[in-house]
Amino acid sequence: MRIGVLGGGQLGRMLALEGIPLGNRFAFLEPAPQPPAAAVGTIISAPYDDPAALDRLADAVDVVTYEFENVPAASARLLAEKVPVFPPPAALDATQDRLAEKRLFEELGIPVAPYRTLDTPAELGDALDAVGLPAVVKTRRFGYDGKGQAVVRTAAEAERAAKALGPGLIAESQVPFGRELSVIGVRAADGSRVCYPVTENHHRGGILRASWAPAPGLERALLRTAGRYATLLMDRLEYVGVLAIELFESHGRLLANEIAPRVHNSGHWTLDGTQASQFENHIRAVTGLPLAAPRVRASTAMLNIIGEMPDVTAVAALPGVHLHLYDKDPRPGRKLGHVNVVGANGETLADRVEQLERLLRLVDGK
Amino acid sequence: MRIGVLGGGQLGRMLALEGIPLGNRFAFLEPAPQPPAAAVGTIISAPYDDPAALDRLADAVDVVTYEFENVPAASARLLAEKVPVFPPPAALDATQDRLAEKRLFEELGIPVAPYRTLDTPAELGDALDAVGLPAVVKTRRFGYDGKGQAVVRTAAEAERAAKALGPGLIAESQVPFGRELSVIGVRAADGSRVCYPVTENHHRGGILRASWAPAPGLERALLRTAGRYATLLMDRLEYVGVLAIELFESHGRLLANEIAPRVHNSGHWTLDGTQASQFENHIRAVTGLPLAAPRVRASTAMLNIIGEMPDVTAVAALPGVHLHLYDKDPRPGRKLGHVNVVGANGETLADRVEQLERLLRLVDGK
Repeated sequence: MRIGVLGGGQLGRMLALEGIPLGNRFAFLEPAPQPPAAAVGTIISAPYDDPAALDRLADAVDVVTYEFENVPAASARLLAEKVPVFPPPAALDATQDRLAEKRLFEELGIPVAPYRTLDTPAELGDALDAVGLPAVVKTRRFGYDGKGQAVVRTAAEAERAAKALGPGLIAESQVPFGRELSVIGVRAADGSRVCYPVTENHHRGGILRASWAPAPGLERALLRTAGRYATLLMDRLEYVGVLAIELFESHGRLLANEIAPRVHNSGHWTLDGTQASQFENHIRAVTGLPLAAPRVRASTAMLNIIGEMPDVTAVAALPGVHLHLYDKDPRPGRKLGHVNVVGANGETLADRVEQLERLLRLVDGK
Repeated sequence: MRIGVLGGGQLGRMLALEGIPLGNRFAFLEPAPQPPAAAVGTIISAPYDDPAALDRLADAVDVVTYEFENVPAASARLLAEKVPVFPPPAALDATQDRLAEKRLFEELGIPVAPYRTLDTPAELGDALDAVGLPAVVKTRRFGYDGKGQAVVRTAAEAERAAKALGPGLIAESQVPFGRELSVIGVRAADGSRVCYPVTENHHRGGILRASWAPAPGLERALLRTAGRYATLLMDRLEYVGVLAIELFESHGRLLANEIAPRVHNSGHWTLDGTQASQFENHIRAVTGLPLAAPRVRASTAMLNIIGEMPDVTAVAALPGVHLHLYDKDPRPGRKLGHVNVVGANGETLADRVEQLERLLRLVDGK
């Protein structure tokens, strides 16, 4: 099939790298010059809301998908008039607004941290009373990688954050969490679905630094619960493709944080840690192939390469290492690639991660 | 790095699919229209001996490699004046002529089946006396996939074959072999080398149909011997990249048949059966990265898709299956893709292969 992708970043690149062997060709709509996906398909270089470019894309492909959630919903709908679009554009509505997202969780009985909307500065006092401190103040729309949010510890900090982030905010309790987890589910058009094992995620500065999968020591009951949440959401959204849910594990239960209606950084480990990656299963779903079982090959850690390139030769020399570079120019805070590392057992894996962290840390300013 | 490849077929395509995540970009020199590699790089559409096209390629890349052995050695040398070419062009000389190849085996003490050159029809009688019947009559140059050779059972058949194949032949004993094997080695510019486990290969009509790896029940001593042969050859040729040796296992010993100075169909299983594929290691070698250990993930079978496409949905529904399609138009005898299938144990694998064979056989005219 010919697959159109809104966005030509590293996620688009990896979708194509995994989708080409399934017999597909790719075209990407991407405004940025020389995007990572240029190596693996045709680039239509235009803004995401350019009607002529959307037309060209629709004419050139059999199905459209997207690699990030801030695609204008109007663009997805415009495309959907001409060509199948997966995940369904309605899923974007539910995930582009944090309030709609929270309400969706609540509607499905999926627990979330206490939150309040914050439309005007006057509401700040009431909101903080309700959610307590410390809290997280977030824009309702267009946040990613820690952008559009601030952790606040005092009322004064909250006021500054609310001013800086502008109107249309949400305040939520900062969960006293044990750890951050995520679960990745995939749903096919026929309603069949699979879930990958839950991943443990380590952030710093709002950016994912590392994932461990399957999440070490996760109780079986919580694993099942995470899968159930993914299933509930995917069914409710009549979803087709990969969906990720970020979760907090807190006092033995899971709280949902947010949904990403796309392949997700915390699922990059699946490229080497499972028999069929999130990218392959997303492409299977949107092209109508049966889903592949997300069978684990080995315990895996994923470390992002952020800001600057490490010594690639040294990284490549480590055993069990898989390099996934995005061919992007280095820039502070920018994701330039990731490294998956597998180990036959937890100890081997931990050793390898330690060596790898040393090589990546050299350039990560820590 | 920017990597130039002579040839834009499925081997070039898979080199790029595995080489792009290592941060490389690809350009292919390929005369055929719409080649499989078009999805993963720039195509320079010209004959392999077009000096202007070779110049363009040399100017556009940092290193050149090739995906098939019948590249004009003169082209490889022309490129080598401007840009590093791996494997070294001298390796082409040794493998493009079956006589030079046999002599190289003999020089290194690697056993081969009895053979005789056959430059003129007058030599036929002597040659058959020397090698016996049945025999294989082959052109010395430019054979592949069973083309340019014939199995002959009588002197009359031999005469017809010699006439049909033209001058510059070689006649060799048909080895009463137990089975056909191959070994794939990789050598880096610093002289380090790794070998994949030996593969068992099943041909029909001169075309590889299926491989099993690691070769079931192969004696440890023969495994070591195969690795030693690969090492001897790679060192002798000051080789950089992947090299495959086709072998016969006959009466408890190995006879070398031929060398392919490139990634090889019998190594396609490494994409899913090992932690680092032959394609990744070839790219590591030619770009100066350290080689990755060819650690086996699971027993794997590789089945070629030949001539016509099977029901891809049915194939994709089988557990443990990995599709690798080449985006080529169906044509009798043409390799359109391959399927790797893994199994946790021999029984599971055999079951899955049986199911897969049924799906592929439907279209393979058997």
